[in-house]
This record gives sequence, structure tokens and C-alpha cells, in this order.
Amino acid sequence: MDAYEDWNGGRSRRIEVGDLRVPFREIPLTNGEVFRTYDTAGPVAVDGELPKLRAPWIADRPEGETQLSLARRGVVSPEMRFCAEREGVPVERVIEELSRGRAIIPSNRRHLELEPMIVGRAFKTKVNANIGNSRVRASIDEEVEKLRWAVRWGADTVMDLSTGPDIPQTREAILRNSPVPIGTVPIYECLEQVAGRVEKLDIERYLDVLEAQCEQGVDYFTVHAGVLIQYVPLTARRVTGIVSRGGSILAKWCLHHHKQNFLYEHFDRICAVLRKYDVSFSLGDGLRPGCTADANDEAQFGELRTLGELTKTAWEHDVQVMIEGPGHVPLHLIADNMAEQHKHCHGAPFYTLGPLPIDVSPGYDHLASAIGAAMIGMLGTALLCYVTPKEHLGLPDKDDVKQGLIAYRIAAHTADIAKGLPGARDWDDALSKARFEFRWEDQFNLAIDPGVARAYHDQTLPAEGAKTAHFCSMCGPRFCSMQITQEVRAMASDEVAAGMAEKAKEFAAGGGEIYSPAK
Amino acid sequence: MDAYEDWNGGRSRRIEVGDLRVPFREIPLTNGEVFRTYDTAGPVAVDGELPKLRAPWIADRPEGETQLSLARRGVVSPEMRFCAEREGVPVERVIEELSRGRAIIPSNRRHLELEPMIVGRAFKTKVNANIGNSRVRASIDEEVEKLRWAVRWGADTVMDLSTGPDIPQTREAILRNSPVPIGTVPIYECLEQVAGRVEKLDIERYLDVLEAQCEQGVDYFTVHAGVLIQYVPLTARRVTGIVSRGGSILAKWCLHHHKQNFLYEHFDRICAVLRKYDVSFSLGDGLRPGCTADANDEAQFGELRTLGELTKTAWEHDVQVMIEGPGHVPLHLIADNMAEQHKHCHGAPFYTLGPLPIDVSPGYDHLASAIGAAMIGMLGTALLCYVTPKEHLGLPDKDDVKQGLIAYRIAAHTADIAKGLPGARDWDDALSKARFEFRWEDQFNLAIDPGVARAYHDQTLPAEGAKTAHFCSMCGPRFCSMQITQEVRAMASDEVAAGMAEKAKEFAAGGGEIYSPAK
Repeated sequence: MDAYEDWNGGRSRRIEVGDLRVPFREIPLTNGEVFRTYDTAGPVAVDGELPKLRAPWIADRPEGETQLSLARRGVVSPEMRFCAEREGVPVERVIEELSRGRAIIPSNRRHLELEPMIVGRAFKTKVNANIGNSRVRASIDEEVEKLRWAVRWGADTVMDLSTGPDIPQTREAILRNSPVPIGTVPIYECLEQVAGRVEKLDIERYLDVLEAQCEQGVDYFTVHAGVLIQYVPLTARRVTGIVSRGGSILAKWCLHHHKQNFLYEHFDRICAVLRKYDVSFSLGDGLRPGCTADANDEAQFGELRTLGELTKTAWEHDVQVMIEGPGHVPLHLIADNMAEQHKHCHGAPFYTLGPLPIDVSPGYDHLASAIGAAMIGMLGTALLCYVTPKEHLGLPDKDDVKQGLIAYRIAAHTADIAKGLPGARDWDDALSKARFEFRWEDQFNLAIDPGVARAYHDQTLPAEGAKTAHFCSMCGPRFCSMQITQEVRAMASDEVAAGMAEKAKEFAAGGGEIYSPAK
Repeated sequence: MDAYEDWNGGRSRRIEVGDLRVPFREIPLTNGEVFRTYDTAGPVAVDGELPKLRAPWIADRPEGETQLSLARRGVVSPEMRFCAEREGVPVERVIEELSRGRAIIPSNRRHLELEPMIVGRAFKTKVNANIGNSRVRASIDEEVEKLRWAVRWGADTVMDLSTGPDIPQTREAILRNSPVPIGTVPIYECLEQVAGRVEKLDIERYLDVLEAQCEQGVDYFTVHAGVLIQYVPLTARRVTGIVSRGGSILAKWCLHHHKQNFLYEHFDRICAVLRKYDVSFSLGDGLRPGCTADANDEAQFGELRTLGELTKTAWEHDVQVMIEGPGHVPLHLIADNMAEQHKHCHGAPFYTLGPLPIDVSPGYDHLASAIGAAMIGMLGTALLCYVTPKEHLGLPDKDDVKQGLIAYRIAAHTADIAKGLPGARDWDDALSKARFEFRWEDQFNLAIDPGVARAYHDQTLPAEGAKTAHFCSMCGPRFCSMQITQEVRAMASDEVAAGMAEKAKEFAAGGGEIYSPAK
């Protein structure tokens, strides 16, 4: 086993467990214990590509077999065992959730480098990072580097939203280097092929693009099949109209041709392609609100109901489905979103962008939207699409990707503790104990960002001795509450404590007024 | 009136309205309109001190008169009118909330530089910033500069938590420069006087320190009178014991002397001093949980019930009260905190530190705790004590103060929209309209941090022309959804829209299945 390494500014190592080589990150503690966390970073690449972990798993699997079709027959796939081990749950739970459509394992049979993960409300809340170039900025190496950076900072899935040149080449490089599921929005590549002339789009071109992307190994597709022509006029009086790129493309196509959305009309043919490769749907919310004023309107909820209808169709084809959600939603309206989704989409996992509960924080929308993300995660959303500090302003660079991921891992972990996921608080308890016992090194290594935790501590108290000191820079030695508490604990030994607790009960029984301030 | 100035990287100016000179910040928009926001920054200092706005208001006011005593008699003070104008509500609302104890105007009659503000669930959610030196780092000028910086970035109140040398001198400089209420924790100065020997503390010294701080003009005191001796043993088995400095000091005192907390025993005498100056109580939560594992335990809620009892005593003395709250609380347990506080504290405003819903994010606790703050703010908490990125690690510097304030203003604004405060969304709507109409300059100037919004935009598209461009760097010109939406809006003219909406209704009436994918 490898030695501990310097990782994100702390000490830890990747470990692989069992015959399936399920990855975890192991953190050594100064009290002799170790602590394990979920790890998304993947193995080390060899010759510019990751090892093909899944090749032997897929070898004998017939085309058209999906995790859903297997689960429905009660067949346990290596992917299911891998996810169960990774989540620390019995594999029966994975099968049950998959078979009911309440969870998905996005895992194209062509994406052999994938370390499978499961998306569903019964499991750890996951985080998606968007990367991708545009005409304004483009470089394949830059995007691969961004992918590696994203999984290092905890991205559970990554969407390649490239819209510029070299879309297929960029995607190929990303897939061969990705240990996490990769999603795309195929309509972008279609539009690139017709040089931006929306009216030239049609289902044949779309299916060709889907097939090509499936062959490469894309794990899930955002398909805006719910942008129906009758919903488009409902957006005309909105403050910010349609803000989804895919949504606006399809709305424009519908209005131009005075025809129904071709993705909706030919949804069965799309399902057939996805089934062949076990690619999952991420049914797109093309009419999501782009500002808090437009939240929860008829356009948004109308589309959501259509996505529920399409979910059933996809399931008939054994295709796995998740549902995309908003967007911009005030905090008190977030619960309605989760409730409507749950009601109309038959339990399929919800995958939301934020939501962002205010509109006035450009530059800090990663932070503002983490508030909405934590809330909707607590209510059951399974996958949270991150927002970076550059949202509404520009394209994220590496540091933005990191800031977005930290914000969203915080939101996801907040949700996991709040929804009572077994063991979710273990990580917090380990860090809290280290904090109380002044084990500073352990506190840094257990932190979500060890390097930043250490650097912030050292800004005020740089001396090496301060890392073992029984106080910190916040209060100085005289006022340290943790130190005083330890004295209190010593004084209030268990015996004394028991006696005093008894006394406290007597006080309470007597009305708790013995020490009345009026005396 | 002054011209617009460069302010936090944007264009705006301070304006003063009416005979009371109520401040607002006015932002000019490129469409000829202006937008007004609440402003905390205060007027410009002259000779190192702020003008004494309140001197004429106080001149004839008898000692011992408080905003609460006035409101109870239906007397309208200039402070009440000022707050009503500032909040955009009728003064009757201010009087009603004050007289019922549901709101406070922290305003020591000696703090003449104060621009009054109101804390209560019926009003704008406010944000407190903590500053203060310690033995490890200390400089009076640095603290005054931190105060000016804090109010510039939106601090509604500021607590001076200095624990090092020169406590009185630091406080004097802060008060003479503060347009916002200043709070302190007087037990810190007492402990400084007895050189850290907790057992030497007594009520006489405490009252002397209170009187001196009242004379200087402190507007509210954190008083840990609820740390009763019988609650202390309840903390012995906690993961992180007692984490409040004041709480641990009083716990240690109680255990050492085997006596009840002297602040509780002599609460009436404390009330008498506060009443004389109209200083408000911030009843401290000395037993707040220091990690999520310890949240909502009997120690915490026992103290909270005692704070409710003390609230009634303070009200008998016409002293204004708010109640401090946690701390570290998982997201799903936050509602219980607000409910318990509301139930036991008779409607007195709640003032919480966070809460922080996880423990693993040192370096990012401003962000993580903003999630809890937004949630508890939505539920009615009136004042949110910020957390900076340095929480648990070190002392905040200027940038940390700014980061903490931005995070908490986002949380507070999220809460205001969610609790349906009239007009709260106006700011968002103004920015969303600017966004949709590609008025980039307006978007920057309306942003919570104009300089950062502009800088992030310019990182990708630095050209001056890009600020009037009808696209942005995120999608590039071909894929801009906002631009496409505008075309959609043009195509779907109102008449067409009306016709299509009619059609949509027909579809819906027919079962909405006309475009069934199965066809």
C-alpha cells in the first residue's frame, strides 16, 4: 500500500478495497487511528489514460442490458456491488432503489474507466461540476486538467458543456481520463454542426450525435424533451424569460416551425439509443426560472409534469432517468419544488442547479446557491449541480471550479447529516474531537480543504509550537474556552457530575425557581 | 447633494432623507432610474470622530427612559421614527413591536454618533460583525479601521470582543467612530482586571465595569446570566464541552465557589444599570453547542429556558432584551431552536451565531454557517452574528471581515425574501431586469460586491465593448439563451402568445396527451 502523500495540503492516501478495488481516502490521525472518506479522485493515469477497471465487468454483458433491467430481474452487477461498498450499505438496498427508479448508476458500457457511483435520495448526496470550453476560450488540455482538478476536489459527476470547436475531441480526452460519470447536452453539438441555425435541427441529426457520443462513453445526456410548444408563451411575460441554453434553442425551433419539440415527438427513438449503451437520461429543465421573480410558475411546473410523463416512457425502455430542476428559487418556495418533483416524477432522482435563493450576489453565487442546495438536498434531491463564483459573469477557471466544489460538498454534507444518512456525522465527530483535544494536525488533515485550514491557522500563529498548543489565536491563552472546559470537566468528575445532575433534577422538580433573581 | 462616488468598486452615493437625516445608498442606473438600498456605512468622520446626530434627541430625555418605556406609553422617539423611515414601514409598527418586546432599538443614550436601527423579526434581518484584539494581536487603529470596513460592507451591529490590553481605550475609539450599535461582553474586561483568575470575579467588579462601559456608550451587553450551576454537569459528557468563552468562565466560577452564577443572583442590579442608559441585554448562550453532536441538548435548552425567565425580569425594569443562540446545529434541528426560543422567550428577538450545520469546513465556515443562518433567519431570527473564514483557526483580518459580511448579508437577504418582507425582492428584480437587458454596468453597480462582479466579468471578457454586448463569456454569441429568449419574445408577440395560451389550455383540457411520445 502506498505511503501517505501530500494531498490538497494535508496528509492522506488513496486505498482500494476488495476485489472490485473500491476507492477511499484514508487520513492518518495523531492518536493512532485512521479515518476513511469517500473519494472521487480516481487512480493515477498511465500514458494519459486511466486503467479500464470495468472492462472485465462488461465483457459478457449483452448490449441493451442496463443497470435498471438487471436490478428489475434481481441480478447483482459489479457496478451495484461497487456502489454498495462505496456507500457502506447492503447491496440489497442498491438493487431495491435501482429497480424502483429511485436511484441510477450512470454508467455507459463504453466508459470503462468509470468508478461507478449511485445517484438517489437514499444515498450520499452527490455534486456535479460543469466544465467545458466555448468559442471565447478553448483548449482540450485545459479541460482535461479542469476535470482532474474537479475530481480531486470532490466532483461526483462532471458535465462537459463545451460549445466551441473540437467538441468531440475534447470529450474523448475527458472520457478517457474520467473516473466519474460524464454528462453532456447533445443539442450543443448538433447546433455546432448546423453553424448555429436553430431551424436546421432535426431528429436524424440528433440521433446521429447521440449515437456518436454513446460510442465514446458519455454516461448521461441532458435532453430537453419537456420544452413543449404550448409552454413557450407562458414564458413571454417572465422577468428573465428562458435562461436555459437548451431550452431557448428548442423554444426557438418550436416557434419557427410551429411544430412540437422533436425530442418529445421522437422520444421513443431516443430511448432506444440510450438503452443500447445504458446511458441515463437527465431530463432537462429548459424552462427553469432565471430569477427569483419567475420561480415556480406555470411554465416551470408544466414542463416538470411532462418530464414525469417522459420518465415513465423511459422506464418502459429500461432506461435510467434523473430529472433536472432549478435554478433561481426563494428559500421558502424550495420545498414546493421537491414536492412537485416527487409527486409527478414517480420517485426518479432530482438533480438541481442550486437553487439560488436571491439574485443580487454575482461573484458569490456559489455561496448563495449553496444555501438553496443544502435545503433541497435535505428534502431529498440526490445530485446538486454546482455553481461557481463566476456564474452569471464568466467562465470558471481552476480556482472557481475548486470554490464551487467546496461550496457544494458543504451543501451536500449538510444535507446528508440533516436527512440522517447513517454515519454521515462520523466525519464531523472525528474533527470535533480533534478540535476539543487540540490535535491541530488532525483538524487540518480532516478538513474539507486541509491546505486552507492550515494556512489560515498559520497566518495568526505561524510557530510550529502553536500546532500543539492548548489554545489558539482567537482568544489567546488566558481566555481559551476549550481549555477552561477541560478544567471544568476535570472538576466536575463523573461522580460529582452525577450528584449535581441529581441536584439539578431536584431544582427542576421544585419549579426551577430556587435561584430566582428576585431573591 | 454629493456626486456619485466610487464605492466598493461600483458607482453610488450616500443620501440622507428628512429632518432626521436617515441614510440610504443611491445607485444610478443606465436607464435613467435610480435604486435605493439600506446603508450602514455612516457619515464621514470629522477630526477622527463621527457627528453627534443624536445629541438633540437625547437632550431633554430623562435618565432611565428607554425605547421600551417610551413605546409602552405610546411615545414616539426620534429613534423610532428613524428606524421606521429606514425600514420603509409605518412608525406604528415600530412602536407595536417595541412595546411587546418583539423588537429592540439598541441605543445607549451616551452613543450620540449612532444611526439607530431596529432588531426584530418583523423587520429586515440584520447582521452583526465581531471585531476585537487579543493578547496575540492588538492595535487600536487596526480595530477602528476594521470597524469602518465592517460598516462599509454592511454590518448592522458590531461587537468589540477585545480581550487583550487597552480594552477601554479601544472601545472608546470604536464608539466615537461607530454609526452602528456596539456590543461587548463585559466579563472579558473583568477577567482582564483580575489577571485571568476567574475565582476572583464578583458582582461589585462586574457592576463597576458595566457602569464604565455604559458611560462610554456601549449599546448592548452580552450577559451570561443563564449559565446556572445545575446546567454545568450536563456538559461534562459533551463532545466539545463548553465553547463559549463567557460560558466557560462562569461555569468555572460556579464550580470553584460551589455557588450559583452571580450574574443570575444579582440580575436585578444589572437591570438597574442598563435601564439608566437604555443599554440592551443580549442574554448570552454560554452553553451553546460547539459541534453538531452536542446540538439541542439539555444543557443548551435548559439555559434557554432560564434566559426566557430573565427576559421577563428585564422587561419589568423596562430594559430591552434579545436572546443569543447557537452555534453548531444540523440543518434539520434548526427549526427546533427557533421554536424553543419563541416558546420560552416570549417573542424577544433571537440573535444567533450561524448556526453552522456541519463541523468539517474550517476555512469555509462563513459559507457553511450562512446556510444555517439563512434557514434560521427565514424562521424569524432577527440578528445573525457573522462567522468569518478564520473561525476555529485564527483572528479575522480585513478581508475575512468582508467575506464574513458578504456571506451573512446573503443569508439575511435570503431570509428576508423567504419571510416575505415587503419590498425585499425589489433589489433582486432590479438586478434581474438589468441582467436580462444586458445592462452590465447596472448589474455590477447593483451587485452586493460591485468590484468583484466587475472583475470576474472582465477576467474573461476584458474589452470595454463587452460591457454593452448582448452576450457574455459563458456561452459566447452563438448560444446565448438570453438573446434567444428575446427573439422568442419577439416572435411570440402578445397576440400570438394569447392565442397559443388558449391552444395550450385546449391541450390541457384534452388530457395534455395530444403530443404523446407513443404516437
